[in-house]
Amino acid sequence: MNDYNPSEIKDISFLSEIQNIAIIGVSKSRNYFFLKAHQENFNGKIFAINPKIKIIPGFDDGTQGKIFPSIKDIPEPIDFAFIAVAKEQILKVIDDCVEKGVKLVSIFTSEFSDSGTEEGIQLEKELIKHAKNKVKILGPNGMGLYYPKKGIAWRLGFPSIPGRIGLICQSGGLANLAIFMAKELGLTFSKVFSFGNGADLDFVDLLAYLSKDNETDHIIIYLEGIKEGRGKVLRKVLEKNKKPIILLKGGVSNTGQIAAKTHTAALTGKNEVWDALFKQFGVIQVETLTELLSGALILDYYGTFKAKNFVIVSISGGYGVMLTDLVEKYGLNVPKFNDDIQKKIDKLFYMRGTSPRNPIDFAAQFYDMETLTEIFELALSDKKIDAMIFDIPALYFDPRFRFLKYINWEENLLNALSTGQKYHKPIFIIIQRVDFPEIRYDTIKKLRIKKIPVFGQPKEFLPFLQELNKNFNKGN
Amino acid sequence: MNDYNPSEIKDISFLSEIQNIAIIGVSKSRNYFFLKAHQENFNGKIFAINPKIKIIPGFDDGTQGKIFPSIKDIPEPIDFAFIAVAKEQILKVIDDCVEKGVKLVSIFTSEFSDSGTEEGIQLEKELIKHAKNKVKILGPNGMGLYYPKKGIAWRLGFPSIPGRIGLICQSGGLANLAIFMAKELGLTFSKVFSFGNGADLDFVDLLAYLSKDNETDHIIIYLEGIKEGRGKVLRKVLEKNKKPIILLKGGVSNTGQIAAKTHTAALTGKNEVWDALFKQFGVIQVETLTELLSGALILDYYGTFKAKNFVIVSISGGYGVMLTDLVEKYGLNVPKFNDDIQKKIDKLFYMRGTSPRNPIDFAAQFYDMETLTEIFELALSDKKIDAMIFDIPALYFDPRFRFLKYINWEENLLNALSTGQKYHKPIFIIIQRVDFPEIRYDTIKKLRIKKIPVFGQPKEFLPFLQELNKNFNKGN
Repeated sequence: MNDYNPSEIKDISFLSEIQNIAIIGVSKSRNYFFLKAHQENFNGKIFAINPKIKIIPGFDDGTQGKIFPSIKDIPEPIDFAFIAVAKEQILKVIDDCVEKGVKLVSIFTSEFSDSGTEEGIQLEKELIKHAKNKVKILGPNGMGLYYPKKGIAWRLGFPSIPGRIGLICQSGGLANLAIFMAKELGLTFSKVFSFGNGADLDFVDLLAYLSKDNETDHIIIYLEGIKEGRGKVLRKVLEKNKKPIILLKGGVSNTGQIAAKTHTAALTGKNEVWDALFKQFGVIQVETLTELLSGALILDYYGTFKAKNFVIVSISGGYGVMLTDLVEKYGLNVPKFNDDIQKKIDKLFYMRGTSPRNPIDFAAQFYDMETLTEIFELALSDKKIDAMIFDIPALYFDPRFRFLKYINWEENLLNALSTGQKYHKPIFIIIQRVDFPEIRYDTIKKLRIKKIPVFGQPKEFLPFLQELNKNFNKGN
Repeated sequence: MNDYNPSEIKDISFLSEIQNIAIIGVSKSRNYFFLKAHQENFNGKIFAINPKIKIIPGFDDGTQGKIFPSIKDIPEPIDFAFIAVAKEQILKVIDDCVEKGVKLVSIFTSEFSDSGTEEGIQLEKELIKHAKNKVKILGPNGMGLYYPKKGIAWRLGFPSIPGRIGLICQSGGLANLAIFMAKELGLTFSKVFSFGNGADLDFVDLLAYLSKDNETDHIIIYLEGIKEGRGKVLRKVLEKNKKPIILLKGGVSNTGQIAAKTHTAALTGKNEVWDALFKQFGVIQVETLTELLSGALILDYYGTFKAKNFVIVSISGGYGVMLTDLVEKYGLNVPKFNDDIQKKIDKLFYMRGTSPRNPIDFAAQFYDMETLTEIFELALSDKKIDAMIFDIPALYFDPRFRFLKYINWEENLLNALSTGQKYHKPIFIIIQRVDFPEIRYDTIKKLRIKKIPVFGQPKEFLPFLQELNKNFNKGN
């Protein structure tokens, strides 16, 4: 339950209780897009609203759902409604929702304050008045709510598996992209909010909600602006928040700022104020969607951790050298092992072309999983070492290069990597994108089961680790 | 032909005349790995050398090749030999090669100066003496030569299609990785050199060769160190060179430098001297293998160009804002269109949620290829604009979202993108890696035919464009 003043933070803790939903404004010309999207995985009852439609093939056959002229005609209570009607109908629809006792609506309809016209701004104000603080609104001009555990999804193909990451995304298009990119990474969400103009529920409300939500461990954000006067409440929310937050801030450059205004009418002008606030409370800032999602994957698998001193393991000495350069460029270290450990590691290397010092180069000895496991154990047992980065060129996965005696190397490799868990030290794998995509993907799937994150190249995750390290050093 | 003093630069311009090759030291325990690799695509005659082997299944059946005890026993001239024998046999083998008149050998065998032992260093010196300046050597401790036009390749699966990019790669493992990553990117090579210890032919010789080679347009390099005393000749080579060069320098950090010494006995100590030289001659420096290959792809498709002012096109306003931020962070601009052009573009937008200013947001109007083409024409006709970055979220490729009237959109999109060629302005496409890898790859293949490069995220190519822009502004 919400422990803020309701005039400061709107409470949406009822989300987990949603049972019946309605899609208002189902449209044949849109091929019932939003209805089908919600139908795909929703595990409660769905009702379709359109006074002009009598039949929706495959929906109103008695097995799945029913069509009604108004939400008021539905004989059961409705908790959530997705609204995509012409803007001229919006006030009437909201009145009906209030009367029906709907708790939350997403309004996809646009041309409110986002239009920049006086008429649009007025209509948005009217909308809020009509909602009477009884029905909470996501939008208008937003995609609303994706809640995998309930099967609430505004688009077909969104994963039905719930995760522990909450995403607040001001841009609907970017939310779509983030969800599908996350799917490719193996990252799943507790809830995703696309709040559009944020006329009612805004960024601060949603952050307050996720920071208390027991289905969410970590919070990631794409944000273009905060409404005037919300800074003080944001500070309160950040003060109470205990969850790690990663932020991708849009509109930080001059031209980007102007574009953000056109996009979501966002007030990006006070970057310095925000920046100071976010920094003070240890919010990790990144620059790309890839970095945002890679960071989320790392938090999901490992939580926060000290990320200063790395052991680097490669099979190509050149890649190890380059990786070491990069890690140090990002303000992290590749320290020497302590003498005892180094001596033990030295003894385990017997092939030519290897290098036992940090960065470790396994060269062809890579296939000898017994010593590889021993060396991992030794390296990770060094108290100085916080984590490991291991580069495995995907060309080693080509079956043409697997000799008979190495036939179980993949399985053994997965076991060797479990040493990370044993020492509670994160391992990051790089498998470059080479010309064997299926074999690469197959290996990644196996590593995911072991909760070991895989990336395509070091710059996908090093910026996040750099920021994580900065915050950790602040004693966060 | 070489126009340097032979005491300064060794001439290998005979490479294009290679006809017969030999693999010395074919090994059953290695499953004839190097022989099979060269057999895969080589279009001349191959001979196998091993005094102890009488039969190689599938090779010595009269159709493909013959086995000989020594290279001297081969009744035809040999131009190139790949050598993988025990180091104890190397001097005898080189003597034979000299007697036979072999022009070039690659020596895979290691444990020369790379071992760090006095014995190894001496053996390397002996090796050079025995070569008598008659046979040129790549290596020892290197992979040697990949020359797709001839089908010379040290590994199975290397592409047989020749390209116009030359790669000099000090690390053999990194060369393997680069070649397979390039294959995935659609990038092909004229020649790749992995020169290992560089006992005879070194980085400077190979750079001199590629800078004159008429099969090579652009040169990319991974380098850990240059031999003492070669700086002066390097300057001469760079002075005469007219081809764009991209460099990934290994061993730039403190720990990286130590690791590079272990790896290739490279003297990385004089970073400042090199750096000044490379900067003076407009060598573009990058930090990762991804950036090196992305840069090569851009040079291959577009050559060098003014890369200062970009038009950004997106379908998600949020992605456009983020992209604009990034482009400006990398020191590039997203300028306003001139007034006339802006007015014309304004008139062509008719859908809600679009934005006609730079960064352009097409939103749902993306599918209207007629106006999209017109808008591309207008934007690229603006004299201020140098190039375009266009973000196409791959989720738009999902067939479930293709309505009937948009059925030809992909073909029309390819046509729209041809406006780049018309105005001689480069277009860069971003198609994020989402959960439809096959559809993404299918689209990339079509764009490749049109010579339009595609990337997965902006940071894969923006660092290269930033460096390209710096050099272009120097009047290079």
